Amino acid sequence: MSYFRDNVEGAAGYTPGYQPKATEVVKLNTNENPYPPSPEVMKALAEIRPEQLRRYPDPLGNAFREAAAELNGVEPANIMCCNGGDDLLSIAIRAFCDERRPVAYPVPTYSLYPVLARLQDCEMIEIPFDEEFNLPAKLATTGAALTIVCNPNAPTGSFIRVDELASLAAELTGVLLVDEAYVDFAEQNCASLVRDFDNIIVLRSLSKGYSLAGLRFGYAIADQDLIAGLLKVKDSYNVDAVAIALATAAIRDQAYFRQNVEKVKQERAALTAQLRAAGLAVPESHANFVLAQTKNTSAGEIHKKLAQQNIFVRYFNVPGLSDRLRISIGAKEQNEKLMAALREIIAQ
Amino acid sequence: MSYFRDNVEGAAGYTPGYQPKATEVVKLNTNENPYPPSPEVMKALAEIRPEQLRRYPDPLGNAFREAAAELNGVEPANIMCCNGGDDLLSIAIRAFCDERRPVAYPVPTYSLYPVLARLQDCEMIEIPFDEEFNLPAKLATTGAALTIVCNPNAPTGSFIRVDELASLAAELTGVLLVDEAYVDFAEQNCASLVRDFDNIIVLRSLSKGYSLAGLRFGYAIADQDLIAGLLKVKDSYNVDAVAIALATAAIRDQAYFRQNVEKVKQERAALTAQLRAAGLAVPESHANFVLAQTKNTSAGEIHKKLAQQNIFVRYFNVPGLSDRLRISIGAKEQNEKLMAALREIIAQ
Repeated sequence: MSYFRDNVEGAAGYTPGYQPKATEVVKLNTNENPYPPSPEVMKALAEIRPEQLRRYPDPLGNAFREAAAELNGVEPANIMCCNGGDDLLSIAIRAFCDERRPVAYPVPTYSLYPVLARLQDCEMIEIPFDEEFNLPAKLATTGAALTIVCNPNAPTGSFIRVDELASLAAELTGVLLVDEAYVDFAEQNCASLVRDFDNIIVLRSLSKGYSLAGLRFGYAIADQDLIAGLLKVKDSYNVDAVAIALATAAIRDQAYFRQNVEKVKQERAALTAQLRAAGLAVPESHANFVLAQTKNTSAGEIHKKLAQQNIFVRYFNVPGLSDRLRISIGAKEQNEKLMAALREIIAQ
Repeated sequence: MSYFRDNVEGAAGYTPGYQPKATEVVKLNTNENPYPPSPEVMKALAEIRPEQLRRYPDPLGNAFREAAAELNGVEPANIMCCNGGDDLLSIAIRAFCDERRPVAYPVPTYSLYPVLARLQDCEMIEIPFDEEFNLPAKLATTGAALTIVCNPNAPTGSFIRVDELASLAAELTGVLLVDEAYVDFAEQNCASLVRDFDNIIVLRSLSKGYSLAGLRFGYAIADQDLIAGLLKVKDSYNVDAVAIALATAAIRDQAYFRQNVEKVKQERAALTAQLRAAGLAVPESHANFVLAQTKNTSAGEIHKKLAQQNIFVRYFNVPGLSDRLRISIGAKEQNEKLMAALREIIAQ
């Protein structure tokens, strides 16, 4: 007999990417940014006083809300702080979905969505992308209480134009959550849509563009009424005092951020060209990773052989992805090590 | 029309205690520890490297699990790290409760329990305490999937003996969560029960005894199978790299912790005596606050007049508590300021 709810008992849980303990590795498996966070973040860390740890944090993280509002051309009331983007996904599914209120999303996509849906015991409506990862027309008419579009999409790196997402929001009867965890590496974003649509939630993360995966900080941008409802569902103190201070410092340093993102984009272009030259099919990516399709050597085999050399990339052994590798964009030197090893494996 | 689930739309949300911005206040309203965290915590903070922020944290926080296991005489597999104790409460209610699986708890108690139950849309079985806040016998036979006992209880400060809770666990068909957020100030705790009972979860917080309310760190101690199930429900990276490092440093410094707790207990004894001398009824407290019953002057009135002097205590305007004030134990000087103001208000 189990003490747990059936849906929880039967759940597999989410499998995070492997975190090797050794530091002498080329770690391109979890989409971390290869460059360190802004020096302003370390300065903010050095300024943390015991008093900030002793007292409860600001439940709303207003210092961050103000900075994020300024950055995105909205009001602080349009912002909610989250303990990583995953916190917002969990909050949204609990706020909108249940046994009678489904969630819908195109597939393949971020593998956490079905895990969270299962925990909430809500129906999942999965609409397959076409070969070019265009927005499936069917997504507009599922009747789901919540529709999630990861954009740029993980693990494909593909991108849906903002005007297409606006049209989708207009057609939906429920809420559209645009998961922009990777948007810092794309050319457009949906922030401005929240002024025109009362049913759009934009998810942002500081893990990728701001090199702060270890800090767990994300945020929502949405209509004030949506934010007010989501605030009721979040833990009252979901983000801590240190994280609020460091995250605020990070997004206030846009000069460093832009430089960092530019470097990642340059390396993305270089790595894409090198992978193609090595015979892999690599669609254009708008994120800080590429999804490379292997040809004569199996992706699982390459994944294993790379790991033996302490080079880690991500392999999803699921239909539609089993011949591909998701490779995070590293620094120049890491990408070169990967390519050298990869060329050798393919030549074998 | 609302986009939200009906139970979410109708929810009031949790109201955290007031957080005054000014620092020149006597803040005895949210049960923070009046003394700073261990110097070891500040040392750990100074040692955080950019690399720890750049990379994802350990999803399980194993460094902390090992330290907490050692401290509580259990195995690391008996420990789960949480983003504050509230995170564990939310995880437990989502893991065990739904429309057909109720949660039960004695009342009055921590006001977050019904808020979380409402969000999960599960039935709440509230069993009133008697006048002395003894464990209600009825709690054993509710049939709830999850029973929560806050011990020491908030906001009463009362304490149920460990052998009584063991008997309760033996009688229950569901899970017993003992919320020990305040146990550092009591004489006993339930940690050792998890070795004998597969249905007990002990909740711990670093907010009170370790002066780390700003850090958001708590943990569960339970049977390995229970922990394994709870891990599936938590966010994959629910605690961040900084919090893991600081929390681990905090619980490794037991000498500082014991000294800190001893000072709070001494002040608790002194404040209790002074409040009684001023004519208030103050039951013995096992937590870092006291619940004082006022006599001729109304509690709401005292609360308001104290706030006008920048002295903050907590007032719950609900049946059974409306003639009482919950006062966090401050440092000697804060307690003296409170008593001086209180005596004057009562004499008016």
